[in-house]
Amino acid sequence: MSKINIYIDKNLKEKLYLQIYNCLKKQILSGDIKVGTKLPSIRQVAIKLDINQNTVIQSYNFLEEKGLIKKISGKGCFVQEFCEFKVERKEIPLIESFKYGQSLKNEKINFSNGTPCSEYFPIEDYKKFFNEVIAEYGGEIFQYQSVQGVDSLRGLLSEEFEKEDIFVKKENIQITSGTQQALDIAIKLFSKETKPTVALSDPTYPNALNIFKGWCNIRTLDIKNDGWDMDEFEEILKEEKIDFVYECINFQNPTGVTWSLEKRKKLLNLAEKYNFYIIEDDSFSDFYYVGEKPYSLKSIDKAGKERVIYIKTYSKTLMPGIGLAVMVIPENLIERVLLIKYGLDTTTSGMNQKILEKFIVSNKLSQHLSNLRKEFGEKQKLCLTMLERVKNLEILHKPKGGFFIWVKLSDEIDGEKFYLECKKKGVALLPGALFYKDKRDVCKIRLSFISPTLDEIKVGLEILEKTLFFCMMKNSKECSY
Amino acid sequence: MSKINIYIDKNLKEKLYLQIYNCLKKQILSGDIKVGTKLPSIRQVAIKLDINQNTVIQSYNFLEEKGLIKKISGKGCFVQEFCEFKVERKEIPLIESFKYGQSLKNEKINFSNGTPCSEYFPIEDYKKFFNEVIAEYGGEIFQYQSVQGVDSLRGLLSEEFEKEDIFVKKENIQITSGTQQALDIAIKLFSKETKPTVALSDPTYPNALNIFKGWCNIRTLDIKNDGWDMDEFEEILKEEKIDFVYECINFQNPTGVTWSLEKRKKLLNLAEKYNFYIIEDDSFSDFYYVGEKPYSLKSIDKAGKERVIYIKTYSKTLMPGIGLAVMVIPENLIERVLLIKYGLDTTTSGMNQKILEKFIVSNKLSQHLSNLRKEFGEKQKLCLTMLERVKNLEILHKPKGGFFIWVKLSDEIDGEKFYLECKKKGVALLPGALFYKDKRDVCKIRLSFISPTLDEIKVGLEILEKTLFFCMMKNSKECSY
Repeated sequence: MSKINIYIDKNLKEKLYLQIYNCLKKQILSGDIKVGTKLPSIRQVAIKLDINQNTVIQSYNFLEEKGLIKKISGKGCFVQEFCEFKVERKEIPLIESFKYGQSLKNEKINFSNGTPCSEYFPIEDYKKFFNEVIAEYGGEIFQYQSVQGVDSLRGLLSEEFEKEDIFVKKENIQITSGTQQALDIAIKLFSKETKPTVALSDPTYPNALNIFKGWCNIRTLDIKNDGWDMDEFEEILKEEKIDFVYECINFQNPTGVTWSLEKRKKLLNLAEKYNFYIIEDDSFSDFYYVGEKPYSLKSIDKAGKERVIYIKTYSKTLMPGIGLAVMVIPENLIERVLLIKYGLDTTTSGMNQKILEKFIVSNKLSQHLSNLRKEFGEKQKLCLTMLERVKNLEILHKPKGGFFIWVKLSDEIDGEKFYLECKKKGVALLPGALFYKDKRDVCKIRLSFISPTLDEIKVGLEILEKTLFFCMMKNSKECSY
Repeated sequence: MSKINIYIDKNLKEKLYLQIYNCLKKQILSGDIKVGTKLPSIRQVAIKLDINQNTVIQSYNFLEEKGLIKKISGKGCFVQEFCEFKVERKEIPLIESFKYGQSLKNEKINFSNGTPCSEYFPIEDYKKFFNEVIAEYGGEIFQYQSVQGVDSLRGLLSEEFEKEDIFVKKENIQITSGTQQALDIAIKLFSKETKPTVALSDPTYPNALNIFKGWCNIRTLDIKNDGWDMDEFEEILKEEKIDFVYECINFQNPTGVTWSLEKRKKLLNLAEKYNFYIIEDDSFSDFYYVGEKPYSLKSIDKAGKERVIYIKTYSKTLMPGIGLAVMVIPENLIERVLLIKYGLDTTTSGMNQKILEKFIVSNKLSQHLSNLRKEFGEKQKLCLTMLERVKNLEILHKPKGGFFIWVKLSDEIDGEKFYLECKKKGVALLPGALFYKDKRDVCKIRLSFISPTLDEIKVGLEILEKTLFFCMMKNSKECSY
């Protein structure tokens, strides 16, 4: 059957069983090792590579777990069919945590949400606007709409953006069915014969990672308190082609970091110099609790030489059920975006577009946001004040807005174990590992402060403090005995 | 700079300027010819290839039109940046015809729609159900929902499918935000390191083509009156790997063809033998006007060896604004589908899922469908009767359901010119070329009979007949003088 090459490099940091796994996986997925091929026996491999048999067993187990091979008793290990359909195990917790985060019962204290809870949704206004739209437009509003988005809404948004120094004609605005779809459009925009390469922060928004993972090469950069190390980024740019950057410039998820003006400018200059685009995911800048609303990267994008594809969602400012986001697109990309959008879902809900229009025109959206800012600001302040007093825990960044506080636990504590301990005690939060590209185990957690009440925050953070103490004790016991 | 190769073959049918265009395009897109490279002068190329200078000019113009090169006066033609973002001109009519078809004013007679016009939408029921859902679920319905779809709806659909011999647990049902999204999921399901290959009918649904075009290799098969030539298909399968088939088994768009039972069985057998999946787009089987509802391919899919991914949309049976489709997924694919869907838009509108549930439970959907069948059936009958009397025109297939009649005009007449002539006279239809992969010029048109009233059909088809006569006369004049 197929020829099989297994090579390892003992000088590399990467664990040997992972090296074997990756080496075989590559050959199986590329078709170099055909379906049905029998892998060499564990003993053979161990002798040939001069390594422990357990290492080989470990890599074969891993291949089986991923559905790439099948062990048949008494016969050996065989390359399996349809391996590509298996979900990687590491991805399942992502969905589970998502489910968990959203469907949390009321008796639990929820520090995990990425969206305001439903008590905050402006249902009465939505209902009122829904009935108005039906009265005004009748059945036509349920017909397919313009692919680019309802014309009057785009006109209105163009005026709204101007207030924030984003000067854009309605012709360069694309309405999408949410942020996810906007990201999907971006990937398709940059996909050529080969996978495009995206540079993004590590840690970052897990579902962006999830979307990019399948269709892009991913280059990660550490995020500092004011953005990336731009010298480090330029070194990368000199070495490899980056097709686009994905970043949340204000109140990044999960760290809460806001980029400095200097680094924003540098990013735009590099984009011009090295010919890449920047996808600015502006999910959080409406949620500022100190000072004024931070400016977007898009607002300093160079006219005529635009490099920023700007995305703003209404899932957080109104509610997920409205299923709307807006993209601001550089002139040279708009035609292609239109065609991609047409292929994705023909058109976004006309009803929800008209409802959003009414929310903006009536000032109900801005009133709603102003209320949310007041409430969330108090919650954030309480959280920060309480967390500062907790031992064995460090607030990595003190954000001035957004939904999250990014916290480092004492080194001895594993974020995932801590998450499970808290879950048992009725407190939901998310382990930091979820936000890293390689899901590496980190002693970090993300606390979302928008859902629990002030009282729940007090109780929840006390439980968190106790759990932390408990984990420290347990660890020291495990270490000393 | 880069080395440039231009080769032509004068024995080929393909026009010389297109050969030059394609040859240069390939090298530019692959990067073999770098951005900024100056192309050889028109004179040089003409001499070297021993062809007319005008041919070279034509190909350079075409390259410029596509944004691949830029002519700089007095300097020459240079390979340009960002060529990949230009929309191919052939794709613009697709979007335009779409816009045109949907936004047609009332004074026009509309034979172009792929969806019932808004007079048919069950607005009152929708409104009633909307208010019921808000009363019952409050804000929670606007929160993110289960990624797979609302549980109660999936349970209900599982029972509904059983009535049509599709036996499926709710765990194998995925709700999507429309057919387009379902197709996008399918493409992602089959995408590996290389592009998957899809086999489909030529002609077919243009937006499926549009979606597949960017991400798949496409293999087309002629569609006969009862499906494909299965021997021809098997010959293809012996030669190349087909990853999946896309087909509308009942009342295909645009031909109206329904596959024979024999060919359906053969297709399933081949799927097993050659290891591919079939995406069954079941958009039209609810619209049968003669006899009983035709069975789906999915209903004869082999238990435990499922090969059919079944998609059913509610855009046509209810209205596009509901933005819902349902997929029935073989067991081994469901986990992966879930993860892809999670990446696409997190969740489909909970409100619309609950509204659909109410439409089904209250029997309002089935009543609505029964009304539509009665009306559309009469319209189809009238259309067929009238068309049979028209000279210089052939009904290629007499469908028993669906929305369309596929018509061949006299050979001398070009479908696109005929479409434009009719448009001038206030009659909208679609040129057949739109439905072919290579948009080849064919003397065919698609007539949709669902939107015009019976009176409009009479007037519209009379205009069509006169226009046809006019075109024939014009053609014979052009020939004889």
